[in-house]
Amino acid sequence: MNASRLPSEPPTDDADAASVARPTLRALLERRYRQTGAAAPAAGEEAAAVAGLLSHRSVRRYLPKPLEAGTIELLVAAAQSASSSSNLQLWSVIEVRDAERRRALSEVAGRQAHILECASFLVWVADLHRPTELASARGLGHEGLSYLEMFLMASIDTALAAQNAVVAAEALGLGVVYIGALRNDAERVAQILGLPPRSFAVFGLCVGWPHPEAEGAVKPRLPQRVVLHRDRYGSVAEQRPVVDDYDARMVEFYTEQRMAVPAGGWSVHSGQRVATVAALRGRDRLRAALNALGFELR
Amino acid sequence: MNASRLPSEPPTDDADAASVARPTLRALLERRYRQTGAAAPAAGEEAAAVAGLLSHRSVRRYLPKPLEAGTIELLVAAAQSASSSSNLQLWSVIEVRDAERRRALSEVAGRQAHILECASFLVWVADLHRPTELASARGLGHEGLSYLEMFLMASIDTALAAQNAVVAAEALGLGVVYIGALRNDAERVAQILGLPPRSFAVFGLCVGWPHPEAEGAVKPRLPQRVVLHRDRYGSVAEQRPVVDDYDARMVEFYTEQRMAVPAGGWSVHSGQRVATVAALRGRDRLRAALNALGFELR
Repeated sequence: MNASRLPSEPPTDDADAASVARPTLRALLERRYRQTGAAAPAAGEEAAAVAGLLSHRSVRRYLPKPLEAGTIELLVAAAQSASSSSNLQLWSVIEVRDAERRRALSEVAGRQAHILECASFLVWVADLHRPTELASARGLGHEGLSYLEMFLMASIDTALAAQNAVVAAEALGLGVVYIGALRNDAERVAQILGLPPRSFAVFGLCVGWPHPEAEGAVKPRLPQRVVLHRDRYGSVAEQRPVVDDYDARMVEFYTEQRMAVPAGGWSVHSGQRVATVAALRGRDRLRAALNALGFELR
Repeated sequence: MNASRLPSEPPTDDADAASVARPTLRALLERRYRQTGAAAPAAGEEAAAVAGLLSHRSVRRYLPKPLEAGTIELLVAAAQSASSSSNLQLWSVIEVRDAERRRALSEVAGRQAHILECASFLVWVADLHRPTELASARGLGHEGLSYLEMFLMASIDTALAAQNAVVAAEALGLGVVYIGALRNDAERVAQILGLPPRSFAVFGLCVGWPHPEAEGAVKPRLPQRVVLHRDRYGSVAEQRPVVDDYDARMVEFYTEQRMAVPAGGWSVHSGQRVATVAALRGRDRLRAALNALGFELR
């Protein structure tokens, strides 16, 4: 099931670029959930932006083709346009061009080849160093920065910013994939990138032109009634049949994608990811690493 | 300075909705940074999506007008289309319709009136309860979930998802504002929304039709050379003059918006936000609250 076979809106009279047939939102929703009967509000031109969001898939193979000049700056502007708690702007981003640094980062992340191959590798940093320095330079205190809350706020703002960059990149026809595995060894990453105290690489992001032979499929997600609640959190026990159904749909997806099909589908596959300390691949030491990097997390 | 006065692309021949004049990316970048000379790559139709991102402003006054049917479901579909680490989907969202619950939540958040007035109030939940329950039901362990890493992963995935919902909402002409102040008392929020153990309201989100009399301005952000680094983290000391310049630009912004202008501009204003424990407004207890909510944060 790919985009070219999805039902499209009827093309309009004029033949300019803005009016090429594109899939309906309903078709995109049905692909995302692999279920029919999705309700979507009537949407006009704005549907293009929403359609882009619904069509996201991670890209792990790239063409050896550089980005256009100004692209990184445009992505960073999109990122900075995301909301920032109290406008504190508690993040930084490092574009890693240097091949040796990329290699070292890919080692931390279990040797993911796309970290070396993507046109641009961005590392998104929760940054409590900058406010510490700015406060110190003005003779102000910064006791609040030693609390878990400020670490969390910085991490959230970093994520909001990066996601805006992702949306912008995909709107430009680029592909991306997040690299959470940089957290496998936060101290080593800090060393590679010369991160100062109280800054932390939350995740990496590969950006590049998608390889046409490796266009990933849109991954089905849990049905909305599992994640969307009204007024109060619902009961997971009652959701079990819905999750069982999703498990079956994911087995279909794994098979179609020629991926190893885990016995038990998504639930068991996911369960294994959190079952043991070993499955965390070093991230069980994250708290100690953050302490060593200067985050007190009080 | 508002969108209607920004330089626009020349309108094309045909007069359909897709071809109304819209500001150039360069004009939007100059507004975001309040600096001229922004570099933007050549961009065609896709620029509309990026222009939307660059035009974000928080909305705190809404029309008393409901959302169209299917809107929340579309926003949640956009949210679920964001990347999810290992496809674990560690979040839930609660749409709060009940007036009493909204009132109680607004109390936690320092009585922000827009929580009561917006068409839809969404609370975004980092959810390690669902994987705990699903693993238990299948007789699997879930030791990994007791680590800080999994709390952070859930919070990041929640933020990526929410930001996609924000982008979709704004593409539909809606306005939003994040409500981080729900973290002022995480336990009380959990009580109001019936959150089960190991789930946590990361932030709220007001969604509604912007009141035309209260169209907020696009807030200027730090110049890119402060937040964007190449290969290694730069020196904050060297950035000081650039930050001083931004301080001046923010004083101009505060004055223009008839907001109280803090002495010292953005740096001092931000510094005060993190200077003391009192400035955290209860969030210094976040770690204890999370422990009480079942997050061990090992």
